[in-house]
Amino acid sequence: MKYAVGVDVGGTNIVCGLVDEDGNIVAQRKYPTDSQEGHQAILSKISATIEQLIEEAGIASEQCVAVGMGIPGLVDPEQGVSLRAVNLNWRNIPIAGRLKELTGRSVYIDNDVRMYVYGEAVAGGGRGHEFVYGVTIGTGLASAFVQHGSLHYGHRFMSGEIGHVPIENVDFPCNCGRIGCLETVVSATGIARQARSRITKGEASLLQEWFPDIADITASGVSRASDAGDILARDVLAQTGKTFARALAWVVPLLSPDAIVIGGGGALAGEALFAPMRQELDDLLLQDYLGQFVIKTAELNDHAGIVGSALWALKRSGSND
Amino acid sequence: MKYAVGVDVGGTNIVCGLVDEDGNIVAQRKYPTDSQEGHQAILSKISATIEQLIEEAGIASEQCVAVGMGIPGLVDPEQGVSLRAVNLNWRNIPIAGRLKELTGRSVYIDNDVRMYVYGEAVAGGGRGHEFVYGVTIGTGLASAFVQHGSLHYGHRFMSGEIGHVPIENVDFPCNCGRIGCLETVVSATGIARQARSRITKGEASLLQEWFPDIADITASGVSRASDAGDILARDVLAQTGKTFARALAWVVPLLSPDAIVIGGGGALAGEALFAPMRQELDDLLLQDYLGQFVIKTAELNDHAGIVGSALWALKRSGSND
Repeated sequence: MKYAVGVDVGGTNIVCGLVDEDGNIVAQRKYPTDSQEGHQAILSKISATIEQLIEEAGIASEQCVAVGMGIPGLVDPEQGVSLRAVNLNWRNIPIAGRLKELTGRSVYIDNDVRMYVYGEAVAGGGRGHEFVYGVTIGTGLASAFVQHGSLHYGHRFMSGEIGHVPIENVDFPCNCGRIGCLETVVSATGIARQARSRITKGEASLLQEWFPDIADITASGVSRASDAGDILARDVLAQTGKTFARALAWVVPLLSPDAIVIGGGGALAGEALFAPMRQELDDLLLQDYLGQFVIKTAELNDHAGIVGSALWALKRSGSND
Repeated sequence: MKYAVGVDVGGTNIVCGLVDEDGNIVAQRKYPTDSQEGHQAILSKISATIEQLIEEAGIASEQCVAVGMGIPGLVDPEQGVSLRAVNLNWRNIPIAGRLKELTGRSVYIDNDVRMYVYGEAVAGGGRGHEFVYGVTIGTGLASAFVQHGSLHYGHRFMSGEIGHVPIENVDFPCNCGRIGCLETVVSATGIARQARSRITKGEASLLQEWFPDIADITASGVSRASDAGDILARDVLAQTGKTFARALAWVVPLLSPDAIVIGGGGALAGEALFAPMRQELDDLLLQDYLGQFVIKTAELNDHAGIVGSALWALKRSGSND
């Protein structure tokens, strides 16, 4: 059996997992990201953690044939360079090369959402499908596409950033400086934002009781209120689903996926979001596409990033073909 | 030098061209499609034409190593089956196999828009680019995507049909039975339709003089009127361009092309359509994507289909790798 370590580098936490070639996690560590300490300190700790995981799992060192790492922001996976990771304060850093020097192992880096989607595509919700479009509904919204087990990158590895397409009749300001981007509605923050906005405009909701300061409203709070029968909360999730359907109405004819896998915190809203989304999408799509794909929730969830980056590293190193 | 014959089967005409491996057309024939005669008669005539072209060009029969064919509608290029071609009245016909029996040559069939875009991508407007998204603005609107010289198909070879995505605030009825599809605006027929609709609502235009019966208005008429300074015509082309930009605002982040090639009759409107489209697209896209791709008009135009199907056949037959 061959193994790889998958590393998911987030702005808050770093997760390292030793993963076998079937996608099983055999050992795992999670610790806070000290982004102030700079990338060398972060990479040294990752390198030490990799050796601990191998020891803990009791495998031979040479059985771990590669290291994969998912990093937020723009990444050049061919050169192994983190081009821009705002939360980590990284810019044009040759992460793969540096970590290879520390570990003596082959290192492959990529965008974190791509690694998440790759994990879900080959070992999670998209397993068994040929054309998997995966989305994470989290703080923002991003996506990736896996075709016959390979990732689509596009020019300068920039495909997948659908969160910033402006949507007609949406006027929330976006972090990117523009107005009405998809992710101002379809994201965990967008779900909370819609609820706050409607309560501010005078609509009644259970959420006012639960969150005396409406700034504290969260997407999971909206989900719980919806489950408790709150009309506003239910409608916010329905509107979120319908808005997302308008994005998927482009995804389906452009890519023709046979599976759409939806993960991230926003996906926890479940059918309250998915049912209106499916219904709207059925109305928007040409007849030919109906029934040609499944929509599934992520299965690996928080583990998708480490499983995906480990399996992708195995594939890129030629050890899992 | 190796050659292939490219065949472009339309509802009105059939064009056959003998093409060398560099994409040059060395001999060509065009004749009306007798769709009433059925597919066997059509294929027999194509088979005879292939031999004529080879003789005319004076090449050895075995130098023509493959035949490629672009067919409208749904095609299964792996099985070589025309699944549905409404204008030809074909349904589930194993075209590639039948033509192979007649010609004794390897035959590869595909969707006609894919073959057009492939031709433009490798030997036309997209030459030299890695990720080429191509569109034909004709009677309808369809597209294809070529990545590193290979076509993207998607599940059941159904990717590319973006003409039927409903657009907000558009309410023209579409041939597909629904309302406000992209191609009701962004197509040659859509350009004429918009002009007619606005004239019917009382707007003044040169087109009323040129086309006493407004049912006769054509997209090229609208282009000429725009060139002559007609305000309505100019605005129709600008609106068409802006509406198309709303589609491209999804294409760019999903695929991240480095070239977008636009062909078909609608592209002849030129800058009157392209300039407002570019401007709108710049407003809609995330900063990261600006300046990362070129938008070009088709170069091979009417020849893109035969060049594309011939070169794709050469590639599929393993003769042009």
